[in-house]
Order: sequence, then structure tokens, then C-alpha cells
Amino acid sequence: MARREIVTLTNMCMIYDDHGNILVQDRLDPEWPGITFPGGHVEPGESFTKAVIREVWEETGLTIEHPRLCGLKQFPEEDGTRYIVMLYKANRFSGELRSSREGNVFWIKRSELENYPLAETFDQLIRVFEDDSLGEQYVHWDGDEFLREVF
Amino acid sequence: MARREIVTLTNMCMIYDDHGNILVQDRLDPEWPGITFPGGHVEPGESFTKAVIREVWEETGLTIEHPRLCGLKQFPEEDGTRYIVMLYKANRFSGELRSSREGNVFWIKRSELENYPLAETFDQLIRVFEDDSLGEQYVHWDGDEFLREVF
Repeated sequence: MARREIVTLTNMCMIYDDHGNILVQDRLDPEWPGITFPGGHVEPGESFTKAVIREVWEETGLTIEHPRLCGLKQFPEEDGTRYIVMLYKANRFSGELRSSREGNVFWIKRSELENYPLAETFDQLIRVFEDDSLGEQYVHWDGDEFLREVF
Repeated sequence: MARREIVTLTNMCMIYDDHGNILVQDRLDPEWPGITFPGGHVEPGESFTKAVIREVWEETGLTIEHPRLCGLKQFPEEDGTRYIVMLYKANRFSGELRSSREGNVFWIKRSELENYPLAETFDQLIRVFEDDSLGEQYVHWDGDEFLREVF
């Protein structure tokens, strides 16, 4: 029995070091501006793991090793299709940091993240990256408003 | 920029106890028969976490708590669309074990798993459930044959 649906498949990666720093991106995308982590679209037929390695490289100049899946985000788009973000963490990387047209990337102290203008819902999403007991940010429409839950 | 594709969204859950036992399902589905873990389809708009809790309940009678995302599986279907399986682990559960029409469910020793007739590729998939450094089983067509990789 085939049950299929139309989705958008993307990823996002929290890159961190051993000194309390995280790599953030100041997104230029007018649809979701603000501070977030780098990431992008999964290409047709592409491995999910290779997709996040490729996107991080394109947007930061860094090559991450062993990204670890730590959660999923989903929300409904205006046409009702599902938008999925695969969430990864990585603390092994090499290369020279450089920004892309997607937005400037730079290191900040994790403890100072909340001082920055975060992208909408990112304050909640960061919990899924950091709390091992959480694995999903679930944004859904209840008929009146969008609800944002984490599980 | 919208980039969408048609996919099938499913889940699978390794339920285990503290005594070296795992819960397996002897799948009756002729398309993928053999020993595997319970799971099923994500419904439209459903939370991924709630979907795996619901599917495990339907197929085993058990209510799992705090399923933890541990990987993703993907393979291309005959029509080229992507089939995705979200992989979860759970060791907190309640309820009375019962089987469903999907297949008999029963506890076995983890150490004896390889003695059972496993579903195709399940011998490799189990590594993604059990090895924290792995997060994906990637089955793809290279033009001549299907390749099965884990990352």
C-alpha cells in the first residue's frame, strides 16, 4: 500500500567546539531572517548525511565529520505540504571559515546566543539540538493558530 | 525557492529492555517479509514522534515513552520516489504485548537475532540502531545495482 506525500527535505547543523562556542548564520532569506544554523536542501536521491556535509561546506567553508542526527523539525507550508528539517550536530570539522550569499557565518559564545536576533521559533528549536531527551519540533495549525510543540 | 519531492514517510522502533532482550516482528508483508522491528506510516500532518508511538501501540499493544530518534533509512522506490524510515529506540514502555495483522511480535535475546530469518537489509540496518556513530542506511541505485551504505 503506497501512501505518499509532497515534502521539502532540508537540513540544519549545529557546529560547536570544545570551548563553548557555536557557529551561527545570520540568514539573509527574507522568509526566515535572523540568527540560525547553516543548512539547506537535500538534493534528489542524495544521502541525508552527505547532504548536510555538502550544505555546511557550501555555507561555511568547513568540512564537518560525523554529523550526528539529533532531531527533526516539521511545519506545514501554505499549500499544506510538509516541510522537514533534519537536525544534526557536529564538533569535528576542518577548513577555513567563509560566508556565502545565504548569510554571514561567525562564531559566538553559546551563552550569548539569546542576545542575538534569532530567527522565528529558533529559541525553541535550539532545545531540540541541545536536549537529548527531545527529538522533534512540531509546528502545526490547529484551525485558529500555529502551535509549536517539542517532543 | 520551493524544491519539493514525493516521498513515503514511515518509522520503525527498536524496543529493548534492561536484560538483553529486543522486541521483534515477523512481518507478513510479502514485499518485505522476515524479522524486523515494528513500525508503519506517518499520517498526513502527524507529529513524527506521535506517529511512532501510535504505530508501536497498534502493532504491539505497548505504549512507548520517550522514543529517541537514532537514524534514518532511505531507498528509492520503483517509480523513483524516496521512501524514508525514521528510526527510533525506546526502553520505557507499558501495556500487554499482543500481535497485529502486520505480523507476530515477540521478545528474543539480542544475542540470538542473527539466528532468525531477517528481512532483507535488516542485518545492516540494526547497526544504525545500535551504533551511535551511525545515523543513516542509504540504499541507492548506481546504474547497475542497488548499493547499501551506512553513514
